[in-house]
Amino acid sequence: MDKRIEGFSKLTKAEKINWIAQTHFKNPDKAKSILASYWNVNSELQNKHDEFIENTLTNFYMPLGVAPNFKINGAIYTIPMVIEESSVVAAASNAAKFWQSRGGFKAEVLDTLKVGQVHFLFNGDSSLLHSFFEKNKQELIEATNAFSKNMKRRGGGIQSITLNDKSSLIPNYFQLHLHFKTADAMGANFINSCLESIASKLKELARQKHKDLNEGKLEVVMSILSNYVPECLVRASVQCPITEFIPEKGWTGEAFAQKMIQAVEIAHKEPYRAVTHNKGIMNGIDAVVVATGNDFRAIEAGVHAYASKNGSYTSLSNAFIKNDVFHMELVLPLALGTVGGLTKLHPLVQWNMELLGNPDTKTLMKIIAVAGLAQNFAALKSLVTSGIQRGHMKMHLLNILNQMEASQNQKKIAFEYFKNHTVSVKAVGAFLKKNSL
Amino acid sequence: MDKRIEGFSKLTKAEKINWIAQTHFKNPDKAKSILASYWNVNSELQNKHDEFIENTLTNFYMPLGVAPNFKINGAIYTIPMVIEESSVVAAASNAAKFWQSRGGFKAEVLDTLKVGQVHFLFNGDSSLLHSFFEKNKQELIEATNAFSKNMKRRGGGIQSITLNDKSSLIPNYFQLHLHFKTADAMGANFINSCLESIASKLKELARQKHKDLNEGKLEVVMSILSNYVPECLVRASVQCPITEFIPEKGWTGEAFAQKMIQAVEIAHKEPYRAVTHNKGIMNGIDAVVVATGNDFRAIEAGVHAYASKNGSYTSLSNAFIKNDVFHMELVLPLALGTVGGLTKLHPLVQWNMELLGNPDTKTLMKIIAVAGLAQNFAALKSLVTSGIQRGHMKMHLLNILNQMEASQNQKKIAFEYFKNHTVSVKAVGAFLKKNSL
Repeated sequence: MDKRIEGFSKLTKAEKINWIAQTHFKNPDKAKSILASYWNVNSELQNKHDEFIENTLTNFYMPLGVAPNFKINGAIYTIPMVIEESSVVAAASNAAKFWQSRGGFKAEVLDTLKVGQVHFLFNGDSSLLHSFFEKNKQELIEATNAFSKNMKRRGGGIQSITLNDKSSLIPNYFQLHLHFKTADAMGANFINSCLESIASKLKELARQKHKDLNEGKLEVVMSILSNYVPECLVRASVQCPITEFIPEKGWTGEAFAQKMIQAVEIAHKEPYRAVTHNKGIMNGIDAVVVATGNDFRAIEAGVHAYASKNGSYTSLSNAFIKNDVFHMELVLPLALGTVGGLTKLHPLVQWNMELLGNPDTKTLMKIIAVAGLAQNFAALKSLVTSGIQRGHMKMHLLNILNQMEASQNQKKIAFEYFKNHTVSVKAVGAFLKKNSL
Repeated sequence: MDKRIEGFSKLTKAEKINWIAQTHFKNPDKAKSILASYWNVNSELQNKHDEFIENTLTNFYMPLGVAPNFKINGAIYTIPMVIEESSVVAAASNAAKFWQSRGGFKAEVLDTLKVGQVHFLFNGDSSLLHSFFEKNKQELIEATNAFSKNMKRRGGGIQSITLNDKSSLIPNYFQLHLHFKTADAMGANFINSCLESIASKLKELARQKHKDLNEGKLEVVMSILSNYVPECLVRASVQCPITEFIPEKGWTGEAFAQKMIQAVEIAHKEPYRAVTHNKGIMNGIDAVVVATGNDFRAIEAGVHAYASKNGSYTSLSNAFIKNDVFHMELVLPLALGTVGGLTKLHPLVQWNMELLGNPDTKTLMKIIAVAGLAQNFAALKSLVTSGIQRGHMKMHLLNILNQMEASQNQKKIAFEYFKNHTVSVKAVGAFLKKNSL
């Protein structure tokens, strides 16, 4: 069957699905009915979701769960989490509960600067380029007026523009490096529009004033925001007296604190561990990032690059004891938005925002950082006490039971039985055969 | 209103929703009906999706789109993509089309080793620990027999175990560092179960044979897989004669190739650019990772850590000209699974897998790497030719129009009008007022 096609994007949704079902599936009717079973019965709502991206066939369900009891800077939040991985919501809820009675989480925004660059080549005298830039800097900034007016009124806009000579890295390579504030927007469209206007003005000025540059040739390579935002930072922290730091029966606060600190120290010194340590943090971060209509690839890239900023990939969180008080904290970059993008388009994003009390972007930064710290705390707590598998295996058991189409009653007795038996696909299969009610 | 709650996880779904609506929403009935409007009408199917995670309230829709015409190692694929960001599916489709007529994509798996570690402290003579380890290595490995038998039959299992002395990093810190192969499973449960068994055997042996260790105390901190997998690698590449490398009218292949190479070189040397360059790659990677039921946080962490492995965060892709042929390639770690986890549980994951011809894990690694390279190529092509905003603004316009509840007819004339006018929320608002059909 020929799987190539011309003009696919111009077909209607039904035509697209027909072609795909006919050419890619053994049972085309079944393939079509599975897609259709995920459509919303309200065609207006479905149409809205179809238009988010191109060539949409149906809605991919991701579970939306919630973790209640998060005390953050004194207020209580129920946090929405969109994630396919089991145990993450449970771990967040447990961490929230643990800290609720120990003063809760604290969080503060350290800065909100975003970055964009115009990358270009210039084959002339760099001192002439510098004076040319100084002379025309204002005009370059004014080239963004059409986009900037609204943003300025909201307290944002271009904060600085500098010319960087990077010709030691690549022959003739220079860049305009800009800082932006984007108020409650993530700001990608705003920043990219500003940069493209500035680049186009830069080319125009270089053409007009080529004598100022002694005829040196200026060539723009590209203009684009950076997802590396080490000056768009938030800190989340918890603390409690060691005497109250008891994870479960059989532990002293002192022993637990020492183990937690050892685990964090290992993540500071050993990249193999740091990557997974931070992955656990991102389980919490991304779940709320997705739930609030933000772009998790942008957040992931910025966070992991920040984790490697000192030349070796390391832990984003820290833990220590000071005056008999256990402290744990997380500092990370989060370039988020609460307006624009999906925020007003996706009804469940709006629902999640209302659940959070319609926070502004700074408040959302704090909530999301706390979700990351909570996840980190919960993962380490499991790792240094019972091991990570105890919690995981319960959900794993449920998944296997569902896969084997166990009845509700079978599930119930299986949960009892496997409290004291090792979970494996084989063992569950054998158990169900014996208990085929 | 008190937003704290005890025993939330034990409530039924309806009780959870009732409590949330009453305590967090101005209009509780509306809040409840929005959640309900996203439930599947088939309660059995809905129940299946509810059980993926804890405290599930409803299904968060992510659009499932497809990008056809991907030629990979000679075969044609239509690639499923789950992503909320507009332009990604369109860019993938364009890149697929471009390369389909230029030999297509090539991809190969370089290795599939995964990593797990037992982190422990030992306060005695390290040479005694080493001889203790060598003497008991076999017994440690055999402690995993209960889990390993099945995996070995499928060609996986423990590949190596070494004792690393890391006491120069942290006093008394040692680790067992293991390599695994996990066949077609991502293997997190398998690896963690093996590690916990080995750790428990290690403690037991150290207790039994404490005289061999001269009474040195051995204390396990934690046992866990690593998401840093620099030996689980795949390479994707494209190539074509420069004379055929024409992106659009007005360009020569030579000029386009030079610009593309400059753009990649900048991403190699400048971390601010590298982060966004790789973020673009991950737009393609994650969309297929999610569509095939894999864990995008694990993939993100592994990939970005790999991008910083040489001490400075850098581009994952490379571009060059050799013998008048343009080459572009991407090498990255992808620890994926095609069995276990969500793969058999989520009906749309199964649908997406069938769309791809039910690939094994190595084939899926290749497909996903190609999706990343395609995205990278498309993003750079836009950046160095028309700029990234031209494509984005069209989708941005659609989003604004939807937000303002424009009719289909208004949308149609707006698309015509804004071909030659700057898109902004204000401009679209004014346009709709004038054209209120």
